[in-house]
Amino acid sequence: MLNVGIINITGYAGAEIARLVYSHPELKLVSATGRSKAGKDLSEVFPHLEKTDIKIREELSDNVEFVFSALPHAASAEKLSQYVDSSIPAIDISADFRLKDLSTYEDWYDIKHPRPELIDQATYGLPEIHRDDIKKSKLVANPGCFPTGAILSMSPAVKNDLIEDMIIIDSKTGVSGAGRTAKEAFGFSELNDNCAAYGTKGHRHQPEIAQELNFLKYMLKKNITEKDAVELYKEFYKSEPFIKIVDAPPATKHTWGSNYVYLYPYVREDTNTLVVISALDNLVKGSAGAAIQNMNLMQGFEETMGISALPVYP
Amino acid sequence: MLNVGIINITGYAGAEIARLVYSHPELKLVSATGRSKAGKDLSEVFPHLEKTDIKIREELSDNVEFVFSALPHAASAEKLSQYVDSSIPAIDISADFRLKDLSTYEDWYDIKHPRPELIDQATYGLPEIHRDDIKKSKLVANPGCFPTGAILSMSPAVKNDLIEDMIIIDSKTGVSGAGRTAKEAFGFSELNDNCAAYGTKGHRHQPEIAQELNFLKYMLKKNITEKDAVELYKEFYKSEPFIKIVDAPPATKHTWGSNYVYLYPYVREDTNTLVVISALDNLVKGSAGAAIQNMNLMQGFEETMGISALPVYP
Amino acid sequence: MLNVGIINITGYAGAEIARLVYSHPELKLVSATGRSKAGKDLSEVFPHLEKTDIKIREELSDNVEFVFSALPHAASAEKLSQYVDSSIPAIDISADFRLKDLSTYEDWYDIKHPRPELIDQATYGLPEIHRDDIKKSKLVANPGCFPTGAILSMSPAVKNDLIEDMIIIDSKTGVSGAGRTAKEAFGFSELNDNCAAYGTKGHRHQPEIAQELNFLKYMLKKNITEKDAVELYKEFYKSEPFIKIVDAPPATKHTWGSNYVYLYPYVREDTNTLVVISALDNLVKGSAGAAIQNMNLMQGFEETMGISALPVYP
Amino acid sequence: MLNVGIINITGYAGAEIARLVYSHPELKLVSATGRSKAGKDLSEVFPHLEKTDIKIREELSDNVEFVFSALPHAASAEKLSQYVDSSIPAIDISADFRLKDLSTYEDWYDIKHPRPELIDQATYGLPEIHRDDIKKSKLVANPGCFPTGAILSMSPAVKNDLIEDMIIIDSKTGVSGAGRTAKEAFGFSELNDNCAAYGTKGHRHQPEIAQELNFLKYMLKKNITEKDAVELYKEFYKSEPFIKIVDAPPATKHTWGSNYVYLYPYVREDTNTLVVISALDNLVKGSAGAAIQNMNLMQGFEETMGISALPVYP
Repeated sequence: MLNVGIINITGYAGAEIARLVYSHPELKLVSATGRSKAGKDLSEVFPHLEKTDIKIREELSDNVEFVFSALPHAASAEKLSQYVDSSIPAIDISADFRLKDLSTYEDWYDIKHPRPELIDQATYGLPEIHRDDIKKSKLVANPGCFPTGAILSMSPAVKNDLIEDMIIIDSKTGVSGAGRTAKEAFGFSELNDNCAAYGTKGHRHQPEIAQELNFLKYMLKKNITEKDAVELYKEFYKSEPFIKIVDAPPATKHTWGSNYVYLYPYVREDTNTLVVISALDNLVKGSAGAAIQNMNLMQGFEETMGISALPVYP
Repeated sequence: MLNVGIINITGYAGAEIARLVYSHPELKLVSATGRSKAGKDLSEVFPHLEKTDIKIREELSDNVEFVFSALPHAASAEKLSQYVDSSIPAIDISADFRLKDLSTYEDWYDIKHPRPELIDQATYGLPEIHRDDIKKSKLVANPGCFPTGAILSMSPAVKNDLIEDMIIIDSKTGVSGAGRTAKEAFGFSELNDNCAAYGTKGHRHQPEIAQELNFLKYMLKKNITEKDAVELYKEFYKSEPFIKIVDAPPATKHTWGSNYVYLYPYVREDTNTLVVISALDNLVKGSAGAAIQNMNLMQGFEETMGISALPVYP
Repeated sequence: MLNVGIINITGYAGAEIARLVYSHPELKLVSATGRSKAGKDLSEVFPHLEKTDIKIREELSDNVEFVFSALPHAASAEKLSQYVDSSIPAIDISADFRLKDLSTYEDWYDIKHPRPELIDQATYGLPEIHRDDIKKSKLVANPGCFPTGAILSMSPAVKNDLIEDMIIIDSKTGVSGAGRTAKEAFGFSELNDNCAAYGTKGHRHQPEIAQELNFLKYMLKKNITEKDAVELYKEFYKSEPFIKIVDAPPATKHTWGSNYVYLYPYVREDTNTLVVISALDNLVKGSAGAAIQNMNLMQGFEETMGISALPVYP
Repeated sequence: MLNVGIINITGYAGAEIARLVYSHPELKLVSATGRSKAGKDLSEVFPHLEKTDIKIREELSDNVEFVFSALPHAASAEKLSQYVDSSIPAIDISADFRLKDLSTYEDWYDIKHPRPELIDQATYGLPEIHRDDIKKSKLVANPGCFPTGAILSMSPAVKNDLIEDMIIIDSKTGVSGAGRTAKEAFGFSELNDNCAAYGTKGHRHQPEIAQELNFLKYMLKKNITEKDAVELYKEFYKSEPFIKIVDAPPATKHTWGSNYVYLYPYVREDTNTLVVISALDNLVKGSAGAAIQNMNLMQGFEETMGISALPVYP
């Protein structure tokens, strides 16, 4: 069993990693930290995690052999650097090591990167694109939930040079991705049955998508039919354990609690546009599940180990 | 037109009073305060109230002729006292003037009452029970949302001496009654699709209910039929504009945005128990709508003026 | 008082018209029909409408002076024709008279139009675009909820020739617009906390939008700044009682139960794109509220009469 | 691997059994039926179950070694009888074999029992109460979701003779327990953000609770403290893998997708009442998870096998 530590287990991503570690046959959660809640039992903060039997501490214990960091950006790089320096393999859930270009990072996050020299060591953690590099990496930058959906949706089209003019990405998420910290704007009464836009002038996940797709201004070339597009998507993802090409619009609810991604590519003939609808759970394939998938690759475990459970429905 | 001021308009109760004042033909909202948001336009805080064209200030303006206070308890009595001293009629949405017994208040709210000498001047603002006193009062204590449902449900039975042994009150509410202040426990992700108990050892609204019903330990006397019980409830509320006795379980959703209360009394013959199900909107008849109803009585307006709109559905 | 009849009051649009008619000072609901529920009191079907004191019938009574039809398409034109023939003014909530081009209607709705000769008499009921024609009309085709948001969002840009290449409309709605008929796909357990696409190859509301905007393929011309765009939108809608240009993304929740539309126009400089976000209540400004607004214009009442209530929040 | 068949997989309980069977290391789903959807792939009906690779049929295949029936009552007993006659072990999710007294069943369900002679062979499937009998049984009657919560909450008190006068059970559930069949009353728009009572004169789950607790009219004896009550509950359930005694009110959300039950017993001193709050997932421990737990016992597998996953949160 591999001894796992989770930094900042008290947020939603950290807690979701703990849930998945609990079911994983090769992992044992031995230590966890949380900023304001050190000293408490994890079950006081998250009753659903009572079975993990973990006390929240200021620092991870010394016996940790693999680290997940679910700290916010900047704080995460700061804290992770000691593990990287000690060659303990680590996955960073934050944005700190996702962007290869330092100035892009510092522009979009409006902060000085605390350990820029580590950026080169990090691999972008989307196994469907970088599987071989992840296997050899000691530091993986887990992608954001929007980029996961957007990049998986667009990669087959971009790689096959289908796009001529422009890509438009329209992403919707629940608010759990924004974390557990109390804010007036995230109160139940504010958000229940509500729908609103944010980040309208530019979302922080945008450079990450651009980096992985390399370019953003293209549009569908004239001569692809829907049949060909579907074929191409099926071929592109034919060996992927978590990606399913479907033939009707997928629903977010079909992904709940699971690491699966549904992709529905189709062509609108009236405007000659390729549209790809993707659905995934923002805290599983969009965060903690992807982290376990990356860890499986880094450790040489079966890639689907511990994350093959089906979605919970309804 | 009566010049109205709202103290602490930035919470849900204050905002709901503003919404109802806007539609009321005899009222004009001329001034409003809000603790941390003074200086802002109300539309910045609540876009849905943009038509009121109000700036949030530190203090109410001098031309106010009627005051609603939606401050938390203690702060409310403190601030309202100046208006009471100046004989400006006022309605307190907080708990400060609901309980006639000072030590009961100080026990349950664990605080020293800032102006106990005013308690005697206040009338409990449930028109269905205290209509004549409200008409003569300058200071009305608006009831809590749970007591409104509980007292209206039980009054006909208690007044007609139907109860022999015990009253059990089972109340459920949405979280908007807990206010707009950011708390981890009130975040959308915590509460969405959730149901949990609180105040299990004793809820602060309990002494208010006991005060109005005078006693709490009774149970249904042997010889009442459901037909008689329904008749008695219909008779008791026959002139009430906002109370409707229905013959099927009412749904909270049938009350949304309105000042109406649905009561469904029935008798379980297997245990000889009278059960009364009530449904009301916790921010209208449970708060702001009741306040307007009380104000109408205090000012001699038609009791239903400005609050007769039907519920919004679905 | 004008005697009003509602055909098919048992759906959500019909019920919402009834709610608004109840609060309207110049209207009296005297008769209502409902297909499968004739013979019942309206309060049995919709407890929140109990105050209307209406029995559902097979046919409207003879004293009706104004008719709202909330029947599905085809059935609506069929039934409404007798009122049109008798010169009784009518508003059709269905799609039957929205499209001026008969073959477009018959293509998209896959049905033969029952009374095509009436199409020319009908006016498209968007007062912000066709106010003067509505005032003179006896038959108004109430727009769909998506077209209302899309056309209001795009009209200032299109009228001012801002668009060069392409308009993309991304609309989201709750399911109440799909009606009250029981369907497995519309069950609570299927839709709660869910998000999914439909009508992906072409939505029936699309030709309606195209008709009103006249063209669909344009893109933002190079030389407009956000400041100018906002100015232009404010100027375009400066006299509109229900349209508000806001300077932050509006939320659907800020419109609940009200006839107001919030528009937030902005320019994304990175792609030189004009984006306009609109928010409205799909059953009020998107259906029943617009119907009342149209009726006010047709009857010469104040345009805002009975529909100026503020949104309910939270 | 044990070959499993699911009768009526197209409802929520059947689908949830399929989800759990998929993760169970000793089970293989080989066949499934569904009334109106025979001939379809299961993934057409439930995209989240696509990995099961099952086609829905009219009848189970012959190689089935264990049967779960998720048919409605009466239909379930009818269909299951052939498997009982062939000594194939079976679990009935419906109510058909829960009640030992035939006339009680026929009164409450208002139907003639199709195979009353099988009732004696069936064991009530609550492992915490009937574990040894379940191990020896070939036919297990899976309890309803309300009885599971009520009986687990009350058993320690009843077994220890704590109750003197009366038990009041207040249960709330989401609507998924009512099945997937389309009904107007179960539409999203009807139920979203709604709360309403049903079965007010007597719920069908009541005789089941009475049967298991043997009696219903008791009340807390004078001399138990909360400390003693908590101790007694902890002792009573000390070896139970799925039951956790907690010291704060549990939330339904802490149980999502899992087989765990949280119990919070406390004493209200003002009325000398023992209150026990329980929370469980109505489709897992309240249905499909309990079925797997029962199957594990019947087959001699580890009781927690395949159902030890932690709840999904938030």
